Amino acid sequence: MTPHGRAKAPVSRRDRPAKPALSRQGIIDAALVIMRDEGLGKVTMRRIAAALDTGAASLYVYVRNTEDLHTQILDSLLAPVTEDLPADGPWRDRLKALLTAYGRVLTSHPEIARMALSTQPSGPNYLALANAVLGLLVEGGVSDRVAAWGVDLLMLHPTAVAVEQSGRTSSPRRGDDMAQLATRIADADATRFPHVARIGADLLSGDGESRTDWAFDVLIDGLLGSRQPPRQVVPSGEHPPAVS
Amino acid sequence: MTPHGRAKAPVSRRDRPAKPALSRQGIIDAALVIMRDEGLGKVTMRRIAAALDTGAASLYVYVRNTEDLHTQILDSLLAPVTEDLPADGPWRDRLKALLTAYGRVLTSHPEIARMALSTQPSGPNYLALANAVLGLLVEGGVSDRVAAWGVDLLMLHPTAVAVEQSGRTSSPRRGDDMAQLATRIADADATRFPHVARIGADLLSGDGESRTDWAFDVLIDGLLGSRQPPRQVVPSGEHPPAVS
Repeated sequence: MTPHGRAKAPVSRRDRPAKPALSRQGIIDAALVIMRDEGLGKVTMRRIAAALDTGAASLYVYVRNTEDLHTQILDSLLAPVTEDLPADGPWRDRLKALLTAYGRVLTSHPEIARMALSTQPSGPNYLALANAVLGLLVEGGVSDRVAAWGVDLLMLHPTAVAVEQSGRTSSPRRGDDMAQLATRIADADATRFPHVARIGADLLSGDGESRTDWAFDVLIDGLLGSRQPPRQVVPSGEHPPAVS
Repeated sequence: MTPHGRAKAPVSRRDRPAKPALSRQGIIDAALVIMRDEGLGKVTMRRIAAALDTGAASLYVYVRNTEDLHTQILDSLLAPVTEDLPADGPWRDRLKALLTAYGRVLTSHPEIARMALSTQPSGPNYLALANAVLGLLVEGGVSDRVAAWGVDLLMLHPTAVAVEQSGRTSSPRRGDDMAQLATRIADADATRFPHVARIGADLLSGDGESRTDWAFDVLIDGLLGSRQPPRQVVPSGEHPPAVS
């Protein structure tokens, strides 16, 4: 083909457009894009390697496996929650703002919310969030022992609400469910269900935001007046309950 | 074939063993067996029809579709929760017993627990449970308006804990998650996470049962001292939050 032939000159790697260097954050960012466009189920090591134009093996320096990847996505999403916490103001307002911000992250990422409930997060941003909740409780006069169990109770609520709402947004049936409940409350037999019949529509009043704000106050008030949790030794082999 | 031939005598339907008559409870019972042995995913109209030796069309008299079937399974499981409630004793003990029994049903049926969180139940046994919770709150001195929102908060907790635990039992990773969290708490940098480092192992102390019992007291105390929920009109077209 090139009879007088110069062999095709090797192209120096320096002349190729440089691939962006791999980094943990680069991997997480690629994962977030895939999750947004295609769902968490598509966020696999293989798929991200393809998106970053590299081999899956290259990712294992940063991420152990797909589950670790999902955990790291959650932790990455939690970074702004503590960073954006106002430094001033009454402790109760800051605590509610923190929990609300946490709930907002989970509500915006339904699949991550389900994961946060069914697995136990332990990344640095999750620890920072737990630390901030503990600090605000202690600032409010709650003992360390009550705060130790209270952080679990407080963080479970927005997680559960986010999972509850994820069912609502992912299924058109959810609206039917609520309509059906409203009908059944309105039609409730006052002999069989006297309290439901008497209280009626108040059972379903309020929007999610005011309910959550009210729930945080109930939880915080409960913790302020709480008895100390019992001192207990965790039996070996049994895993204690989750912090979130 | 039978040259002197008597035609084969028709067998009277009366001589066949009778199929058991279809009933709503019979369908639910068949569904529970399939769920226990093969998982909720296999509980379909077709599969139940096969188990009951009938056609799927025959089931539609009792159950609208697969989702309705799952809802009816949950409601059926809730029947003993209110039936077994002791009639006597302090209201707080009875309320905690009721919520504990509800949590136990959900913890024993992880897939039903996830459904109870992501859809809105409204069956008669669910209404009876909500009615009993309301009644006990009011007996304890909680106003109707606080009880109206409090029933949601109280029932959400055991639901969320059951879903949380369902993740634990369905995945061996859950143990790793907890071990990892325990390690990270033990190793927490006291400058970055001072409260986590100070409180340490108390964050993970206690078994699920004592945590839940303590959480119910915190919630009930919070409700006893709670401000009235704001009066609000639900904007039309927006679905109010779930009762559970």
